[in-house]
Amino acid sequence: MVLWETESTETEGTVLDFTKEEEGLEKELLPYDILGNIAHAKMLQEQDFLSLEEFEEIKDVLKDIYEERPEVNAEDVHTFVEEEVTAETPAGKKLHTGRSRNDQVVLDTRLFMKEAAIETALSTLELMKSLENFAEEKNKLVPGYTHQQQAMPSSTGLWASSFVDTLADDLRHLKAIYRLLDQNPLGAAASYGTELDVDRLRTKELLGFESVQENPIYCCNRGKHELMLLQSLSNIVLDVQKLAEDLINFSEDQEIFDIPEEFCTGSSIMPQKSNPDVLELTRAKASEVVNHASAVSSIIQKLPSGYNRDTQQTKKHLFEALRTTKEVLAILTKLIGGLEVSDDFDVKEEIYAAYTANQLVEEDVSFREAYGTVKEEKEYEKREGIKEPKNQEWHDLASYWENELEEWEEMEERLLDL
Amino acid sequence: MVLWETESTETEGTVLDFTKEEEGLEKELLPYDILGNIAHAKMLQEQDFLSLEEFEEIKDVLKDIYEERPEVNAEDVHTFVEEEVTAETPAGKKLHTGRSRNDQVVLDTRLFMKEAAIETALSTLELMKSLENFAEEKNKLVPGYTHQQQAMPSSTGLWASSFVDTLADDLRHLKAIYRLLDQNPLGAAASYGTELDVDRLRTKELLGFESVQENPIYCCNRGKHELMLLQSLSNIVLDVQKLAEDLINFSEDQEIFDIPEEFCTGSSIMPQKSNPDVLELTRAKASEVVNHASAVSSIIQKLPSGYNRDTQQTKKHLFEALRTTKEVLAILTKLIGGLEVSDDFDVKEEIYAAYTANQLVEEDVSFREAYGTVKEEKEYEKREGIKEPKNQEWHDLASYWENELEEWEEMEERLLDL
Amino acid sequence: MVLWETESTETEGTVLDFTKEEEGLEKELLPYDILGNIAHAKMLQEQDFLSLEEFEEIKDVLKDIYEERPEVNAEDVHTFVEEEVTAETPAGKKLHTGRSRNDQVVLDTRLFMKEAAIETALSTLELMKSLENFAEEKNKLVPGYTHQQQAMPSSTGLWASSFVDTLADDLRHLKAIYRLLDQNPLGAAASYGTELDVDRLRTKELLGFESVQENPIYCCNRGKHELMLLQSLSNIVLDVQKLAEDLINFSEDQEIFDIPEEFCTGSSIMPQKSNPDVLELTRAKASEVVNHASAVSSIIQKLPSGYNRDTQQTKKHLFEALRTTKEVLAILTKLIGGLEVSDDFDVKEEIYAAYTANQLVEEDVSFREAYGTVKEEKEYEKREGIKEPKNQEWHDLASYWENELEEWEEMEERLLDL
Amino acid sequence: MVLWETESTETEGTVLDFTKEEEGLEKELLPYDILGNIAHAKMLQEQDFLSLEEFEEIKDVLKDIYEERPEVNAEDVHTFVEEEVTAETPAGKKLHTGRSRNDQVVLDTRLFMKEAAIETALSTLELMKSLENFAEEKNKLVPGYTHQQQAMPSSTGLWASSFVDTLADDLRHLKAIYRLLDQNPLGAAASYGTELDVDRLRTKELLGFESVQENPIYCCNRGKHELMLLQSLSNIVLDVQKLAEDLINFSEDQEIFDIPEEFCTGSSIMPQKSNPDVLELTRAKASEVVNHASAVSSIIQKLPSGYNRDTQQTKKHLFEALRTTKEVLAILTKLIGGLEVSDDFDVKEEIYAAYTANQLVEEDVSFREAYGTVKEEKEYEKREGIKEPKNQEWHDLASYWENELEEWEEMEERLLDL
Repeated sequence: MVLWETESTETEGTVLDFTKEEEGLEKELLPYDILGNIAHAKMLQEQDFLSLEEFEEIKDVLKDIYEERPEVNAEDVHTFVEEEVTAETPAGKKLHTGRSRNDQVVLDTRLFMKEAAIETALSTLELMKSLENFAEEKNKLVPGYTHQQQAMPSSTGLWASSFVDTLADDLRHLKAIYRLLDQNPLGAAASYGTELDVDRLRTKELLGFESVQENPIYCCNRGKHELMLLQSLSNIVLDVQKLAEDLINFSEDQEIFDIPEEFCTGSSIMPQKSNPDVLELTRAKASEVVNHASAVSSIIQKLPSGYNRDTQQTKKHLFEALRTTKEVLAILTKLIGGLEVSDDFDVKEEIYAAYTANQLVEEDVSFREAYGTVKEEKEYEKREGIKEPKNQEWHDLASYWENELEEWEEMEERLLDL
Repeated sequence: MVLWETESTETEGTVLDFTKEEEGLEKELLPYDILGNIAHAKMLQEQDFLSLEEFEEIKDVLKDIYEERPEVNAEDVHTFVEEEVTAETPAGKKLHTGRSRNDQVVLDTRLFMKEAAIETALSTLELMKSLENFAEEKNKLVPGYTHQQQAMPSSTGLWASSFVDTLADDLRHLKAIYRLLDQNPLGAAASYGTELDVDRLRTKELLGFESVQENPIYCCNRGKHELMLLQSLSNIVLDVQKLAEDLINFSEDQEIFDIPEEFCTGSSIMPQKSNPDVLELTRAKASEVVNHASAVSSIIQKLPSGYNRDTQQTKKHLFEALRTTKEVLAILTKLIGGLEVSDDFDVKEEIYAAYTANQLVEEDVSFREAYGTVKEEKEYEKREGIKEPKNQEWHDLASYWENELEEWEEMEERLLDL
Repeated sequence: MVLWETESTETEGTVLDFTKEEEGLEKELLPYDILGNIAHAKMLQEQDFLSLEEFEEIKDVLKDIYEERPEVNAEDVHTFVEEEVTAETPAGKKLHTGRSRNDQVVLDTRLFMKEAAIETALSTLELMKSLENFAEEKNKLVPGYTHQQQAMPSSTGLWASSFVDTLADDLRHLKAIYRLLDQNPLGAAASYGTELDVDRLRTKELLGFESVQENPIYCCNRGKHELMLLQSLSNIVLDVQKLAEDLINFSEDQEIFDIPEEFCTGSSIMPQKSNPDVLELTRAKASEVVNHASAVSSIIQKLPSGYNRDTQQTKKHLFEALRTTKEVLAILTKLIGGLEVSDDFDVKEEIYAAYTANQLVEEDVSFREAYGTVKEEKEYEKREGIKEPKNQEWHDLASYWENELEEWEEMEERLLDL
Repeated sequence: MVLWETESTETEGTVLDFTKEEEGLEKELLPYDILGNIAHAKMLQEQDFLSLEEFEEIKDVLKDIYEERPEVNAEDVHTFVEEEVTAETPAGKKLHTGRSRNDQVVLDTRLFMKEAAIETALSTLELMKSLENFAEEKNKLVPGYTHQQQAMPSSTGLWASSFVDTLADDLRHLKAIYRLLDQNPLGAAASYGTELDVDRLRTKELLGFESVQENPIYCCNRGKHELMLLQSLSNIVLDVQKLAEDLINFSEDQEIFDIPEEFCTGSSIMPQKSNPDVLELTRAKASEVVNHASAVSSIIQKLPSGYNRDTQQTKKHLFEALRTTKEVLAILTKLIGGLEVSDDFDVKEEIYAAYTANQLVEEDVSFREAYGTVKEEKEYEKREGIKEPKNQEWHDLASYWENELEEWEEMEERLLDL
């Protein structure tokens, strides 16, 4: 059965194949679809579209599916769940009252994105902790580079903490996106609302949303929220990519870092090699996450208002980008945990040139003259001391996201125990 | 003179041409460079690197340039300003104390971005007001479309207010970015800080930043903040693009709207034509803004930490994207102001099919059965009434941005009157 | 076992998971890996690195795998095949003589791309035939649109044949790319060739390549050939996307075409709907193919010469883009086959305005004056006749690609029967 | 005056500003517009739409403008030229007979692209020659890198010639695109042809096109040819970017190359620095060229058939990408001309590991065993000799493009002397 009950039997297999999502994707939405169904059914019962008995029959089936997570054998996850319920109770035929597949899929994706944002934030926090530990425990003097040249004295702590800071800003960005995601789209129906007396405020409460997304057309202009989340992931992976690039340079050409052996791989032809493949793949995968954002942007560009099927194709990019982001965050967290600073690498004394000029400035030579003198004489005064790690306070971010996770888990429990 | 005083006279013209920014771009940064210079000089004086007299000589020249806005005849705006000051007072040679061109250009761009974000927000608010007026004053029943087909009863008010809502969310996004921009990078020097006793907290206060961007490497990893602002612009123009697409469809094929004649153009060969070129160009220009974000992302991808010259190329994309965004917002604001709803367009009665099914649901038929009945009988019950505009409260956003504009203007005055 | 035989047992599962390709992708390369192995082994035997007996033992195992297509249970397809051979004969340990996994994977991908290019060309030719038939059999007068407005008299034949022409040019483009793909990279080893006396000309002959790709560094700078093929696919799908866009406009708003019912789908809430989902998905999938090209471009940007692991990530984009391209070509070919022109659609008489002005030109009025007259008088003279389909000769392309397919099949047979 | 003569005087300045091209762009098209006008006028005369006298009056004005290259003071270059002619002779009002601004702008751009392709090819050939000279004259043993690690013995000649080969393939690609550009679109009018008896074969001959682009709708689906040329430029700059990346690595971290001092710049704060800014900017600019291709692709995506104003925005991307491409080719050509190989850089003896293993293979040890032995013993046998440059014959490409340049120049002369 397909949901729109076309009379014709001619709808060919090729068309179904062409229009269907990959099955794996549908299964990923299953838990969110059930949570949405429970909330919708509860509201329908409170608004007298379902009797209490009907609600409970429906809810029991939904709870079972939630726990069993069966294969999704249907056109899509929404049809699958409705069919499973209807197979157990005729009340299932009332479950689609006052909604459309459009607002249903938007809801499912919204819930998915909320949970995924929380998980991404927590994974990012893990990497930040790993970098902070490294900065504190393994702080050594190293040359700071500009233009891929040794430029000034820096430290491994200053370097690592620069990533803590940029990732903290990424989480502030993600938090803003998360708040935009935290709006209930259920009730928007096909894009233009419904005349039935549905209670959008009630489903908002049940599902733990911060607010109702009022305008139904806006709710169904799918893809924009996905894009914003993907932009936030792009920001994170761009930082991770820079981290990978630095690690490659610092360990290969510049021989400052020792990458833990278990993160390296060999060559099939050159017996001597130990290659930083994990970092190279991180570099490439980061570009792919950025590209998923571009793909979603391309898919939704120039679409008119109201639902269009094009937006189905955004789902895969969302899922893959989230998976890849979590994957690169996890592996870099581990790698940083085992990263060592070499005892022996090249430090050019020219890195003290600006320091030497500044010593003259302290003696009241103008900077431009001091610069000229150092440039000509090429003699450098060495500065003592190692720069300390330096980053902003970020632990409020940790408690924010831990709290959101808690609220999410409470919402799940609450709905399953209704 | 070039800033790094190479001995060789061989540095060829082609190299200078190749490495130079377009002059127009440099001039756009001039006012921000001067504000930054005043704040830096004031701090240098308070820290005893400059005497009060030296500071005042420097400041007077800077204030003059600020008011005259001369052509920028030098390698770049930073060199130009320093040369102008040094031509008037030998104290100019001390102006570069404790900073590098790296943190200087980051500062200038940051200030530029702050002001540009405020202006973009205010332009977006203008469009929102125009849409809100339209929704209230010209609310009529129109078919709502899905899949480019008439689907359900909608209204011009519901349609226009959907854009108010999405633009309000864009401004919430922009606000989060703005807060990330609002950090003082001055003092990061070449990427690794300076040993001279500069007071970063003081320049933060003088320049009106919310906080100091602590880590100097992070400060100089230029391009990420630019990218985040461009992502925010992308979100805005994607909504504007959808608005343009709807306006084209609703006015051309669907004949619901009358575009004001002054926004249309004719054909050189077909005497009868009146084409919506403004909307087509808006559609294309929106794609270009999105593309500027991609360009910046490409430029900064895979760069190691610390300054690299590549990032110079991000500037042009930032400027062009901001200009285009303001331009499309302004023209759409005007166009919506003159938009009329036609008196005569096609409304298919099938748009009441879902309503008819819902009437049966009210009589306790299950939705699936009601759907089947309507599908078979093809008789539709017409619903009375016109949907009201529906959007969330957004006037807090207006006061937020107006307040930021005020603070910006106070900062400018404060610095010029030091 | 992993190919580089690291002593450490610590290489963690997470690293292996992170660095591994998806299994499905590896399996797709299996047949090409085997063909490459046979050719390489034959050459090794002729150069006396293998005895005739050793070659035959190896070849028998390879032929078996080719026919059975087993699951690929190893780190990658190359290791899998080598392990399978070595399990049967100790000669397997000599199979990797004179090559590296680098040139091996480049070879496999090159062969894959050659065959995929042929298949894509043949699928494109099918769509061209379908369009040509439509143009000839269902040629009717329709308004030609510019700016989404009726502009001039056109015909369904002229419209359909415009796509035949543009697709023919795409195939000319693809042919040029195909010739660049048609170079043997085997023998480049890890990126810098090998001192062993391998015969690259002989493997070229055996594998049916047009020429040897001489420079080994160039051979191993992987990703560029993939990108060029993806650019060619982009060109094709951009045309297909325009075709889909036209079909949506012509069938929905403009009501000129009737899309065959079996290519439409219904709505879960609106019983009356019949939506062109197939065309909307085609539109979105076309954007995704273009995006795969961008992804590959991002992955390879800024990589230094010589093999880097980043390029592994190009494979997935290549495979997915090719699959999607063939899929949209196939479904559009069918859809065009069943497309009908409606008997009743709106034709505005203004489309004859330019014709009317040209009639005055024939009477020796200057064009600018004629234009002015028609613009003022708004009276139009109707032109008789229907424009004929018009496209360039393209059947040489059909025979070119059929011939290439034949040569490919002969190569396969030749190798399996060595 | 605007070309479509709207009665209303209300067409506001903002709309004109919004819809206008930048003036610089219009001026770039001026010579091509004049060549197109001469050919069109000659054909009109031969078809009796103009008298011989009228043609000569028109042609004289056109030739004057061609030589003087005045500023373009009008809405666009097409209007400007027509107005200039009409100011001198009333025959100017007949000049637009049988064409539209649509086919006129397509023609101008096509001619521009043809000449630009020739120039790009010739600049690419210059870089190839520079690389070939370097390979021959400065061939030294250097380590070949994989994974940014020393891997195997390579040579500066092998490295430089790898770029000759890949650029030669780029020119083969460009040649294919050039042939697709080489079709006459004039006569397509607004997108649907004209009923007037224009002779498209004659304008093809006059303008030196290879063939007529038959289908008028295809002619006016602007942007696709631009995209294909930009793809070709992308391929070239991606190679140039890799060259820049290698030069940065080889000169900075790996200290193999000495970049000529005049291509380096200093630092405003660090007196000791000499930075490879030219190469970093090349790297960034290459990404921007690739991005121009994406921009054009985004602009034309999802547009229906027939002219839409969106495509105007493709022009700027085309011009900028071509200018940037020529610029980076020119500067790299010079830089390679002055590039020196250092006398003293680090060569690790492990680069002979694969060679050592292969020596065992020659003694009939299986490769897998030889690999194991070398991996364990870590003793390496050094190979004598320096790898020779290796690339394919490419001088046919030089003569092809020189010949095309000659034909272009003959065409210009022929038209101006009609």
